Amino acid sequence: MQTFKAKIQIRLKSGILDPQGQTIAHALQSLGFSEVQAVRTGKLMELQLQAENRKAAEDVVKRACEKLLANPVTEEYHFEIAEAEEDVTV
Amino acid sequence: MQTFKAKIQIRLKSGILDPQGQTIAHALQSLGFSEVQAVRTGKLMELQLQAENRKAAEDVVKRACEKLLANPVTEEYHFEIAEAEEDVTV
Repeated sequence: MQTFKAKIQIRLKSGILDPQGQTIAHALQSLGFSEVQAVRTGKLMELQLQAENRKAAEDVVKRACEKLLANPVTEEYHFEIAEAEEDVTV
Repeated sequence: MQTFKAKIQIRLKSGILDPQGQTIAHALQSLGFSEVQAVRTGKLMELQLQAENRKAAEDVVKRACEKLLANPVTEEYHFEIAEAEEDVTV
């Protein structure tokens, strides 16, 4: 078994309204950041997991995204997997 | 003026407890993902902004992170800037 680290990025699909992003954009504008035109927010997750090999790790992360981490109706995800030389700080 | 797109990743500093990540790790484990050992969560923000050049855009994003987007006590951020050929879908 090897230890892998997966970096998952979860974003709202384009066309899905992002009220949190709009609020942040307005907050930035009222703080004087008039250059900022729009903000979209998303989530970042780093998983540390054990798997036989990279293919198996990818499979686990894909299933985890589809089952729990991302909402397939409104969100899209992508991830990168790396072998972890050392443990993620937890 | 050019349009730039900044991708900002905001993470908890190592050593800072992440109860949300722990909850997700437990949820995954009770769904049968026993391979998952730990989860750390973070935030993803995509800013669309106008600036004279890349250097000016970097400066705006850095100030925005320090003033509003990230909590310098508990969080660390890093970002990438790209010229936007087309508008970000908002």
